[in-house]
Amino acid sequence: MKEKLYVVKIGGNVIDQEDDLNVFIQDFSKIEGKKILVHGGGKIATQIGKRLGIKPNYYEGRRITDDATINLCTMVYGGLINKKIAALLCKNNCPALGLTGADGHMIKAHKRPVNNGIDFGWVGDVDDVNNDLLKKLIDADLVPVLAPLTVDYLGNILNTNADTIASVVAASVADHFDVILIYCFEKNGVLTDVKDSQSLIPTMDFERFEELKSGGSIQAGMLPKMTNSFDALNAGVSQVVIGNSDKVLSLTQEDFAQCTRINL
Amino acid sequence: MKEKLYVVKIGGNVIDQEDDLNVFIQDFSKIEGKKILVHGGGKIATQIGKRLGIKPNYYEGRRITDDATINLCTMVYGGLINKKIAALLCKNNCPALGLTGADGHMIKAHKRPVNNGIDFGWVGDVDDVNNDLLKKLIDADLVPVLAPLTVDYLGNILNTNADTIASVVAASVADHFDVILIYCFEKNGVLTDVKDSQSLIPTMDFERFEELKSGGSIQAGMLPKMTNSFDALNAGVSQVVIGNSDKVLSLTQEDFAQCTRINL
Repeated sequence: MKEKLYVVKIGGNVIDQEDDLNVFIQDFSKIEGKKILVHGGGKIATQIGKRLGIKPNYYEGRRITDDATINLCTMVYGGLINKKIAALLCKNNCPALGLTGADGHMIKAHKRPVNNGIDFGWVGDVDDVNNDLLKKLIDADLVPVLAPLTVDYLGNILNTNADTIASVVAASVADHFDVILIYCFEKNGVLTDVKDSQSLIPTMDFERFEELKSGGSIQAGMLPKMTNSFDALNAGVSQVVIGNSDKVLSLTQEDFAQCTRINL
Repeated sequence: MKEKLYVVKIGGNVIDQEDDLNVFIQDFSKIEGKKILVHGGGKIATQIGKRLGIKPNYYEGRRITDDATINLCTMVYGGLINKKIAALLCKNNCPALGLTGADGHMIKAHKRPVNNGIDFGWVGDVDDVNNDLLKKLIDADLVPVLAPLTVDYLGNILNTNADTIASVVAASVADHFDVILIYCFEKNGVLTDVKDSQSLIPTMDFERFEELKSGGSIQAGMLPKMTNSFDALNAGVSQVVIGNSDKVLSLTQEDFAQCTRINL
Protein backbone atom coordinates (compact mmCIF):
# COMPACT_ATOMS: atom_id res chain seq x y z
CA MET A 1 0.00 0.00 0.00
CA LYS A 2 1.30 3.43 -0.92
CA GLU A 3 2.07 5.94 1.81
CA LYS A 4 -0.25 8.96 2.11
CA LEU A 5 0.94 12.34 0.87
CA TYR A 6 -1.04 15.54 1.38
CA VAL A 7 -0.70 18.33 -1.16
CA VAL A 8 -2.33 21.42 0.36
CA LYS A 9 -2.89 24.68 -1.48
CA ILE A 10 -3.67 27.95 0.34
CA GLY A 11 -4.82 31.06 -1.41
CA GLY A 12 -3.93 34.70 -1.06
CA ASN A 13 -6.82 35.62 1.26
CA VAL A 14 -5.40 33.46 4.03
CA ILE A 15 -1.88 34.76 3.52
CA ASP A 16 -3.10 38.37 3.72
CA GLN A 17 -4.47 37.90 7.25
CA GLU A 18 -1.71 37.32 9.79
CA ASP A 19 -3.98 35.65 12.37
CA ASP A 20 -5.58 33.34 9.79
CA LEU A 21 -2.16 32.43 8.44
CA ASN A 22 -0.85 31.59 11.91
CA VAL A 23 -3.84 29.32 12.61
CA PHE A 24 -3.40 27.63 9.25
CA ILE A 25 0.36 27.15 9.74
CA GLN A 26 -0.12 25.64 13.19
CA ASP A 27 -2.72 23.20 11.89
CA PHE A 28 -0.80 22.32 8.74
CA SER A 29 2.24 21.56 10.93
CA LYS A 30 0.14 19.05 12.85
CA ILE A 31 -0.80 17.01 9.75
CA GLU A 32 1.00 13.74 10.27
CA GLY A 33 3.08 12.15 7.56
CA LYS A 34 4.33 13.45 4.25
CA LYS A 35 3.10 16.75 2.87
CA ILE A 36 3.65 19.58 0.40
CA LEU A 37 2.32 23.13 0.67
CA VAL A 38 1.55 25.30 -2.37
CA HIS A 39 0.70 28.97 -1.87
CA GLY A 40 -0.63 31.85 -3.92
CA GLY A 41 -0.32 35.48 -2.94
CA GLY A 42 -1.73 37.81 -5.57
CA LYS A 43 -2.98 40.61 -3.32
CA ILE A 44 0.34 41.29 -1.59
CA ALA A 45 2.07 41.42 -4.98
CA THR A 46 -0.53 43.92 -6.18
CA GLN A 47 -0.05 46.12 -3.10
CA ILE A 48 3.75 46.17 -3.34
CA GLY A 49 3.51 46.59 -7.10
CA LYS A 50 1.37 49.71 -6.62
CA ARG A 51 4.05 51.21 -4.37
CA LEU A 52 6.62 50.42 -7.10
CA GLY A 53 4.41 51.98 -9.78
CA ILE A 54 3.60 48.62 -11.40
CA LYS A 55 -0.02 48.62 -12.49
CA PRO A 56 -1.80 45.24 -12.33
CA ASN A 57 -3.15 44.19 -15.68
CA TYR A 58 -5.60 41.31 -16.09
CA TYR A 59 -7.25 39.51 -18.97
CA GLU A 60 -10.14 37.24 -17.98
CA GLY A 61 -8.92 36.98 -14.39
CA ARG A 62 -5.34 36.06 -15.31
CA ARG A 63 -2.53 38.47 -14.61
CA ILE A 64 -0.59 39.77 -17.63
CA THR A 65 3.03 39.50 -16.58
CA ASP A 66 5.42 42.04 -18.11
CA ASP A 67 9.13 42.37 -17.19
CA ALA A 68 8.49 44.47 -14.09
CA THR A 69 5.68 42.16 -12.98
CA ILE A 70 7.67 38.92 -13.17
CA ASN A 71 10.38 40.54 -11.03
CA LEU A 72 7.67 41.65 -8.61
CA CYS A 73 6.18 38.13 -8.51
CA THR A 74 9.63 36.59 -8.00
CA MET A 75 10.26 38.93 -5.07
CA VAL A 76 6.89 38.61 -3.44
CA TYR A 77 5.87 35.01 -4.19
CA GLY A 78 9.35 33.45 -4.11
CA GLY A 79 10.78 35.71 -1.40
CA LEU A 80 8.49 37.57 0.97
CA ILE A 81 5.57 35.14 1.19
CA ASN A 82 7.45 31.88 0.63
CA LYS A 83 10.14 32.58 3.22
CA LYS A 84 7.69 33.97 5.78
CA ILE A 85 5.69 30.73 5.51
CA ALA A 86 8.85 28.58 5.65
CA ALA A 87 10.05 30.42 8.78
CA LEU A 88 6.66 30.06 10.51
CA LEU A 89 6.49 26.36 9.64
CA CYS A 90 9.99 25.76 11.01
CA LYS A 91 9.00 27.56 14.22
CA ASN A 92 6.19 24.96 14.44
CA ASN A 93 8.72 22.13 14.02
CA CYS A 94 7.75 21.47 10.42
CA PRO A 95 10.96 21.18 8.35
CA ALA A 96 9.86 23.36 5.44
CA LEU A 97 11.96 24.18 2.40
CA GLY A 98 10.67 27.22 0.52
CA LEU A 99 11.06 26.61 -3.20
CA THR A 100 9.79 27.67 -6.60
CA GLY A 101 9.50 25.73 -9.84
CA ALA A 102 12.84 27.30 -10.81
CA ASP A 103 14.73 25.48 -8.05
CA GLY A 104 16.29 22.28 -9.28
CA HIS A 105 14.21 22.63 -12.46
CA MET A 106 11.33 21.51 -10.28
CA ILE A 107 8.56 22.67 -12.62
CA LYS A 108 9.43 23.24 -16.27
CA ALA A 109 7.04 25.32 -18.31
CA HIS A 110 6.86 27.22 -21.58
CA LYS A 111 5.89 30.82 -22.07
CA ARG A 112 2.27 30.91 -23.11
CA PRO A 113 2.11 31.69 -26.86
CA VAL A 114 0.37 34.85 -28.02
CA ASN A 115 -3.18 33.84 -28.92
CA ASN A 116 -5.76 36.03 -30.70
CA GLY A 117 -3.56 39.02 -30.02
CA ILE A 118 -3.47 38.37 -26.25
CA ASP A 119 0.08 38.21 -24.92
CA PHE A 120 0.16 37.14 -21.27
CA GLY A 121 3.89 37.91 -21.09
CA TRP A 122 5.94 35.87 -18.62
CA VAL A 123 3.16 33.38 -17.89
CA GLY A 124 4.07 29.71 -17.91
CA ASP A 125 2.05 26.66 -18.93
CA VAL A 126 3.47 23.59 -17.20
CA ASP A 127 5.24 20.91 -19.25
CA ASP A 128 6.85 18.73 -16.65
CA VAL A 129 7.36 18.28 -12.90
CA ASN A 130 10.71 16.95 -11.62
CA ASN A 131 9.11 14.32 -9.40
CA ASP A 132 12.48 12.64 -8.72
CA LEU A 133 13.58 15.78 -6.91
CA LEU A 134 10.24 16.13 -5.11
CA LYS A 135 10.42 12.49 -4.02
CA LYS A 136 14.02 12.95 -2.83
CA LEU A 137 12.99 15.89 -0.64
CA ILE A 138 9.87 14.17 0.68
CA ASP A 139 11.79 10.95 1.41
CA ALA A 140 14.27 13.06 3.39
CA ASP A 141 11.28 14.08 5.58
CA LEU A 142 11.36 17.63 4.29
CA VAL A 143 8.22 19.62 3.50
CA PRO A 144 8.45 21.46 0.16
CA VAL A 145 6.66 24.83 0.20
CA LEU A 146 6.08 25.90 -3.38
CA ALA A 147 5.55 29.42 -4.70
CA PRO A 148 3.56 29.73 -7.96
CA LEU A 149 6.58 30.24 -10.22
CA THR A 150 7.95 27.95 -12.92
CA VAL A 151 10.94 28.11 -15.25
CA ASP A 152 11.43 27.76 -19.00
CA TYR A 153 14.27 26.04 -20.84
CA LEU A 154 16.19 29.32 -21.15
CA GLY A 155 16.21 29.99 -17.40
CA ASN A 156 13.38 32.54 -17.48
CA ILE A 157 11.14 32.53 -14.42
CA LEU A 158 7.44 32.33 -15.29
CA ASN A 159 4.26 33.12 -13.41
CA THR A 160 1.92 30.12 -13.10
CA ASN A 161 -1.43 29.78 -11.37
CA ALA A 162 -1.04 28.25 -7.88
CA ASP A 163 -4.08 25.95 -8.24
CA THR A 164 -2.51 24.51 -11.37
CA ILE A 165 0.85 24.05 -9.60
CA ALA A 166 -0.91 22.13 -6.81
CA SER A 167 -2.70 19.93 -9.35
CA VAL A 168 0.34 19.04 -11.47
CA VAL A 169 2.57 18.52 -8.43
CA ALA A 170 -0.03 16.20 -6.86
CA ALA A 171 -0.36 14.29 -10.14
CA SER A 172 3.40 13.97 -10.57
CA VAL A 173 3.88 11.96 -7.38
CA ALA A 174 0.72 9.85 -7.65
CA ASP A 175 2.73 6.84 -8.85
CA HIS A 176 4.68 6.80 -5.59
CA PHE A 177 2.17 8.02 -3.03
CA ASP A 178 -1.50 7.86 -2.15
CA VAL A 179 -2.01 11.56 -2.87
CA ILE A 180 -4.75 13.67 -1.28
CA LEU A 181 -5.04 17.13 -2.83
CA ILE A 182 -6.64 19.75 -0.58
CA TYR A 183 -7.61 23.19 -1.87
CA CYS A 184 -8.05 25.55 1.08
CA PHE A 185 -9.70 28.94 0.85
CA GLU A 186 -12.01 31.21 2.80
CA LYS A 187 -15.21 29.18 2.24
CA ASN A 188 -16.31 25.71 3.33
CA GLY A 189 -16.26 24.34 -0.21
CA VAL A 190 -18.08 24.78 -3.50
CA LEU A 191 -21.37 26.64 -3.00
CA THR A 192 -24.28 26.84 -5.44
CA ASP A 193 -25.02 30.28 -3.99
CA VAL A 194 -21.84 32.07 -2.99
CA LYS A 195 -23.78 34.24 -0.49
CA ASP A 196 -25.35 31.24 1.25
CA SER A 197 -22.95 29.06 3.24
CA GLN A 198 -25.75 26.48 3.53
CA SER A 199 -25.59 25.84 -0.23
CA LEU A 200 -22.46 23.70 0.13
CA ILE A 201 -22.14 20.85 -2.37
CA PRO A 202 -20.76 17.93 -0.30
CA THR A 203 -19.69 15.77 -3.23
CA MET A 204 -19.32 16.39 -6.92
CA ASP A 205 -18.45 14.15 -9.83
CA PHE A 206 -17.71 15.23 -13.37
CA GLU A 207 -21.29 14.78 -14.57
CA ARG A 208 -22.69 16.93 -11.74
CA PHE A 209 -19.98 19.51 -12.40
CA GLU A 210 -20.98 19.76 -16.05
CA GLU A 211 -24.66 20.13 -15.04
CA LEU A 212 -23.94 22.85 -12.50
CA LYS A 213 -21.58 24.63 -14.85
CA SER A 214 -24.04 24.72 -17.73
CA GLY A 215 -26.76 25.89 -15.28
CA GLY A 216 -24.49 28.75 -14.17
CA SER A 217 -24.56 27.50 -10.56
CA ILE A 218 -20.82 27.56 -10.06
CA GLN A 219 -19.14 30.95 -9.87
CA ALA A 220 -16.67 31.65 -12.64
CA GLY A 221 -13.72 31.88 -10.23
CA MET A 222 -14.25 28.26 -9.14
CA LEU A 223 -14.17 26.78 -12.65
CA PRO A 224 -10.36 26.56 -13.06
CA LYS A 225 -10.08 25.02 -9.57
CA MET A 226 -12.62 22.37 -10.58
CA THR A 227 -10.82 21.67 -13.85
CA ASN A 228 -7.54 21.33 -11.92
CA SER A 229 -9.26 18.95 -9.51
CA PHE A 230 -10.52 16.65 -12.27
CA ASP A 231 -7.15 16.80 -14.04
CA ALA A 232 -5.47 15.62 -10.83
CA LEU A 233 -7.97 12.78 -10.32
CA ASN A 234 -7.58 11.68 -13.94
CA ALA A 235 -3.81 11.58 -13.40
CA GLY A 236 -4.04 9.22 -10.43
CA VAL A 237 -4.53 11.49 -7.41
CA SER A 238 -6.70 9.54 -4.90
CA GLN A 239 -8.86 12.33 -3.49
CA VAL A 240 -9.51 16.03 -3.99
CA VAL A 241 -11.06 18.03 -1.14
CA ILE A 242 -12.05 21.70 -1.26
CA GLY A 243 -12.63 23.41 2.07
CA ASN A 244 -11.92 26.11 4.60
CA SER A 245 -8.33 26.99 5.43
CA ASP A 246 -9.24 27.34 9.11
CA LYS A 247 -10.08 23.62 9.18
CA VAL A 248 -7.16 22.10 7.30
CA LEU A 249 -6.58 19.44 9.95
CA SER A 250 -10.24 18.34 9.72
CA LEU A 251 -10.02 18.29 5.93
CA THR A 252 -7.53 15.44 6.22
CA GLN A 253 -10.18 13.35 8.04
CA GLU A 254 -12.18 11.14 5.71
CA ASP A 255 -15.46 11.55 7.66
CA PHE A 256 -15.37 15.35 7.83
CA ALA A 257 -18.53 16.73 6.21
CA GLN A 258 -18.03 20.53 5.98
CA CYS A 259 -16.26 20.48 2.62
CA THR A 260 -16.67 19.52 -1.03
CA ARG A 261 -15.24 16.17 -2.11
CA ILE A 262 -14.53 15.79 -5.82
CA ASN A 263 -14.79 12.42 -7.54
CA LEU A 264 -14.46 11.36 -11.14
CA MET B 1 40.05 10.85 2.53
CA LYS B 2 37.20 13.32 2.69
CA GLU B 3 35.48 14.45 -0.49
CA LYS B 4 36.07 18.02 -1.65
CA LEU B 5 33.32 20.58 -1.18
CA TYR B 6 33.54 24.13 -2.55
CA VAL B 7 31.73 26.91 -0.71
CA VAL B 8 31.75 29.93 -3.01
CA LYS B 9 30.54 33.39 -2.04
CA ILE B 10 29.76 36.11 -4.61
CA GLY B 11 29.15 39.70 -3.70
CA GLY B 12 26.65 42.28 -4.84
CA ASN B 13 28.87 43.88 -7.50
CA VAL B 14 28.82 40.71 -9.59
CA ILE B 15 25.09 40.23 -9.17
CA ASP B 16 24.42 43.81 -10.30
CA GLN B 17 26.07 43.26 -13.71
CA GLU B 18 24.10 40.83 -15.87
CA ASP B 19 27.03 39.91 -18.11
CA ASP B 20 29.39 39.36 -15.18
CA LEU B 21 26.77 37.26 -13.43
CA ASN B 22 26.26 35.09 -16.52
CA VAL B 23 30.00 34.45 -16.85
CA PHE B 24 30.23 33.59 -13.17
CA ILE B 25 27.22 31.26 -13.30
CA GLN B 26 28.57 29.39 -16.32
CA ASP B 27 31.95 28.90 -14.65
CA PHE B 28 30.49 27.99 -11.27
CA SER B 29 28.34 25.36 -13.01
CA LYS B 30 31.52 23.80 -14.40
CA ILE B 31 33.12 23.27 -10.98
CA GLU B 32 33.15 19.52 -10.62
CA GLY B 33 31.94 17.83 -7.48
CA LYS B 34 30.04 19.08 -4.50
CA LYS B 35 29.43 22.79 -4.01
CA ILE B 36 27.43 25.49 -2.25
CA LEU B 37 26.89 29.06 -3.43
CA VAL B 38 26.31 31.98 -1.03
CA HIS B 39 25.32 35.37 -2.42
CA GLY B 40 24.95 38.92 -1.18
CA GLY B 41 22.97 41.61 -2.95
CA GLY B 42 22.95 44.89 -1.05
CA LYS B 43 22.80 47.30 -3.97
CA ILE B 44 19.68 45.87 -5.60
CA ALA B 45 17.91 45.94 -2.24
CA THR B 46 18.91 49.58 -1.83
CA GLN B 47 17.62 50.47 -5.31
CA ILE B 48 14.26 48.75 -4.85
CA GLY B 49 14.06 50.10 -1.31
CA LYS B 50 14.41 53.64 -2.62
CA ARG B 51 11.51 53.08 -5.00
CA LEU B 52 9.48 51.81 -2.03
CA GLY B 53 10.48 54.82 0.09
CA ILE B 54 12.70 52.75 2.40
CA LYS B 55 15.81 54.77 3.25
CA PRO B 56 19.00 52.76 3.75
CA ASN B 57 20.49 53.29 7.17
CA TYR B 58 23.98 52.13 8.07
CA TYR B 59 26.11 52.09 11.20
CA GLU B 60 29.79 51.34 10.60
CA GLY B 61 29.04 49.69 7.25
CA ARG B 62 26.33 47.39 8.57
CA ARG B 63 22.74 47.92 7.51
CA ILE B 64 20.27 48.79 10.24
CA THR B 65 17.30 46.57 9.52
CA ASP B 66 13.89 47.90 10.56
CA ASP B 67 10.54 46.18 9.82
CA ALA B 68 10.28 47.53 6.27
CA THR B 69 13.92 46.69 5.55
CA ILE B 70 13.73 43.04 6.63
CA ASN B 71 10.71 42.58 4.34
CA LEU B 72 12.71 44.27 1.56
CA CYS B 73 15.70 41.98 2.19
CA THR B 74 13.47 38.91 2.29
CA MET B 75 11.97 39.89 -1.07
CA VAL B 76 15.18 40.87 -2.79
CA TYR B 77 17.75 38.49 -1.29
CA GLY B 78 15.47 35.49 -0.76
CA GLY B 79 13.30 36.06 -3.84
CA LEU B 80 14.55 38.17 -6.73
CA ILE B 81 18.29 37.48 -6.55
CA ASN B 82 18.18 33.98 -5.13
CA LYS B 83 15.66 32.64 -7.65
CA LYS B 84 17.28 34.39 -10.60
CA ILE B 85 20.58 32.69 -9.69
CA ALA B 86 18.86 29.32 -9.13
CA ALA B 87 17.12 29.55 -12.53
CA LEU B 88 20.36 30.48 -14.34
CA LEU B 89 22.23 27.65 -12.64
CA CYS B 90 19.56 25.13 -13.61
CA LYS B 91 19.76 26.37 -17.20
CA ASN B 92 23.48 25.49 -16.99
CA ASN B 93 22.60 21.97 -15.75
CA CYS B 94 23.55 22.74 -12.17
CA PRO B 95 20.75 21.43 -9.90
CA ALA B 96 20.49 24.47 -7.64
CA LEU B 97 18.07 24.87 -4.75
CA GLY B 98 17.61 28.50 -3.73
CA LEU B 99 17.32 28.67 0.04
CA THR B 100 17.72 30.98 3.02
CA GLY B 101 18.72 30.25 6.60
CA ALA B 102 14.98 30.19 7.37
CA ASP B 103 14.38 27.10 5.23
CA GLY B 104 14.49 23.91 7.28
CA HIS B 105 15.94 25.97 10.16
CA MET B 106 19.15 25.91 8.13
CA ILE B 107 20.85 28.79 9.96
CA LYS B 108 19.58 29.70 13.41
CA ALA B 109 20.55 33.09 14.75
CA HIS B 110 19.58 35.53 17.48
CA LYS B 111 18.65 39.16 17.05
CA ARG B 112 21.73 41.24 17.82
CA PRO B 113 21.23 42.83 21.26
CA VAL B 114 21.15 46.61 21.56
CA ASN B 115 24.69 47.71 22.45
CA ASN B 116 25.77 51.21 23.50
CA GLY B 117 22.44 52.49 22.28
CA ILE B 118 22.91 51.03 18.78
CA ASP B 119 19.97 48.85 17.72
CA PHE B 120 20.65 47.05 14.44
CA GLY B 121 17.04 45.88 14.31
CA TRP B 122 16.39 42.57 12.52
CA VAL B 123 20.06 41.65 12.20
CA GLY B 124 21.02 38.12 13.17
CA ASP B 125 24.21 36.76 14.73
CA VAL B 126 24.55 33.09 13.87
CA ASP B 127 24.18 30.46 16.59
CA ASP B 128 24.01 27.22 14.67
CA VAL B 129 23.99 25.72 11.16
CA ASN B 130 21.80 22.68 10.45
CA ASN B 131 24.59 20.71 8.83
CA ASP B 132 22.50 17.51 8.78
CA LEU B 133 20.14 19.20 6.35
CA LEU B 134 22.99 20.69 4.29
CA LYS B 135 24.66 17.28 4.12
CA LYS B 136 21.38 15.64 3.08
CA LEU B 137 20.99 18.09 0.20
CA ILE B 138 24.63 17.83 -0.88
CA ASP B 139 24.56 14.04 -0.71
CA ALA B 140 21.50 14.15 -2.96
CA ASP B 141 23.74 15.94 -5.52
CA LEU B 142 21.88 19.20 -5.10
CA VAL B 143 23.61 22.58 -4.99
CA PRO B 144 22.30 24.80 -2.16
CA VAL B 145 22.25 28.50 -3.10
CA LEU B 146 22.01 30.51 0.09
CA ALA B 147 20.70 34.05 0.50
CA PRO B 148 22.08 36.04 3.46
CA LEU B 149 19.06 35.56 5.72
CA THR B 150 18.81 33.60 8.96
CA VAL B 151 15.97 32.83 11.38
CA ASP B 152 15.48 33.17 15.13
CA TYR B 153 13.71 30.78 17.49
CA LEU B 154 10.42 32.67 17.13
CA GLY B 155 10.32 32.36 13.35
CA ASN B 156 11.55 35.90 12.64
CA ILE B 157 13.71 36.25 9.55
CA LEU B 158 16.99 38.08 10.22
CA ASN B 159 19.50 39.85 8.01
CA THR B 160 23.02 38.36 8.26
CA ASN B 161 26.23 39.30 6.44
CA ALA B 162 26.82 37.01 3.44
CA ASP B 163 30.57 36.63 4.14
CA THR B 164 29.70 35.39 7.61
CA ILE B 165 27.10 32.96 6.22
CA ALA B 166 29.73 31.53 3.86
CA SER B 167 32.20 31.14 6.72
CA VAL B 168 29.84 29.43 9.18
CA VAL B 169 28.34 27.19 6.48
CA ALA B 170 31.83 26.11 5.35
CA ALA B 171 32.85 25.44 8.95
CA SER B 172 29.67 23.46 9.68
CA VAL B 173 30.41 20.78 7.09
CA ALA B 174 34.20 20.59 7.65
CA ASP B 175 33.81 17.37 9.66
CA HIS B 176 32.33 15.63 6.62
CA PHE B 177 34.10 17.28 3.69
CA ASP B 178 37.45 18.71 2.65
CA VAL B 179 36.05 22.24 2.45
CA ILE B 180 37.52 24.98 0.25
CA LEU B 181 36.00 28.38 0.93
CA ILE B 182 36.26 30.84 -1.98
CA TYR B 183 35.38 34.51 -1.59
CA CYS B 184 34.79 36.03 -5.04
CA PHE B 185 34.58 39.72 -5.71
CA GLU B 186 35.63 42.31 -8.30
CA LYS B 187 39.37 42.27 -7.46
CA ASN B 188 42.06 39.61 -7.75
CA GLY B 189 42.47 39.28 -4.01
CA VAL B 190 43.64 41.30 -1.02
CA LEU B 191 45.64 44.34 -2.14
CA THR B 192 47.95 46.49 0.01
CA ASP B 193 47.01 49.40 -2.25
CA VAL B 194 43.42 49.15 -3.44
CA LYS B 195 44.22 51.32 -6.50
CA ASP B 196 47.14 49.13 -7.58
CA SER B 197 46.23 45.68 -8.85
CA GLN B 198 49.95 44.78 -8.71
CA SER B 199 49.89 45.05 -4.91
CA LEU B 200 48.20 41.66 -4.55
CA ILE B 201 49.15 39.68 -1.45
CA PRO B 202 49.50 36.07 -2.68
CA THR B 203 49.43 34.41 0.73
CA MET B 204 48.59 35.63 4.17
CA ASP B 205 48.73 34.00 7.60
CA PHE B 206 47.32 35.38 10.82
CA GLU B 207 50.61 37.01 11.87
CA ARG B 208 50.94 38.85 8.54
CA PHE B 209 47.30 39.87 8.73
CA GLU B 210 47.83 41.41 12.16
CA GLU B 211 50.93 43.26 10.88
CA LEU B 212 49.13 44.61 7.81
CA LYS B 213 46.08 45.53 9.83
CA SER B 214 48.03 47.47 12.43
CA GLY B 215 49.96 49.19 9.61
CA GLY B 216 46.67 50.25 7.99
CA SER B 217 47.57 48.37 4.78
CA ILE B 218 44.30 46.48 4.52
CA GLN B 219 41.22 48.49 3.65
CA ALA B 220 38.52 48.53 6.32
CA GLY B 221 35.98 46.74 4.11
CA MET B 222 38.25 43.70 3.86
CA LEU B 223 38.69 43.24 7.61
CA PRO B 224 35.44 41.32 8.31
CA LYS B 225 36.15 39.05 5.29
CA MET B 226 39.61 38.30 6.74
CA THR B 227 38.18 37.58 10.18
CA ASN B 228 35.59 35.28 8.59
CA SER B 229 38.40 33.53 6.71
CA PHE B 230 40.44 32.85 9.85
CA ASP B 231 37.31 31.76 11.72
CA ALA B 232 36.61 29.20 8.99
CA LEU B 233 40.20 27.88 9.01
CA ASN B 234 40.17 27.63 12.81
CA ALA B 235 36.95 25.61 12.56
CA GLY B 236 38.47 23.03 10.21
CA VAL B 237 38.03 24.46 6.71
CA SER B 238 41.01 23.28 4.61
CA GLN B 239 41.63 26.35 2.45
CA VAL B 240 40.37 29.89 2.03
CA VAL B 241 40.93 31.65 -1.30
CA ILE B 242 40.00 35.26 -2.12
CA GLY B 243 39.88 36.19 -5.78
CA ASN B 244 38.13 37.54 -8.81
CA SER B 245 34.60 36.36 -9.61
CA ASP B 246 35.45 36.21 -13.32
CA LYS B 247 37.99 33.47 -12.56
CA VAL B 248 36.06 31.20 -10.20
CA LEU B 249 37.01 28.07 -12.11
CA SER B 250 40.74 28.97 -11.86
CA LEU B 251 40.31 29.71 -8.16
CA THR B 252 39.54 26.03 -7.60
CA GLN B 253 42.97 25.12 -9.04
CA GLU B 254 45.66 24.78 -6.39
CA ASP B 255 48.43 26.25 -8.58
CA PHE B 256 46.53 29.37 -9.64
CA ALA B 257 48.51 32.45 -8.56
CA GLN B 258 46.22 35.44 -9.21
CA CYS B 259 44.51 35.35 -5.83
CA THR B 260 45.10 35.58 -2.10
CA ARG B 261 45.41 32.34 -0.17
CA ILE B 262 44.73 32.55 3.54
CA ASN B 263 46.49 30.23 6.00
CA LEU B 264 46.48 30.01 9.76
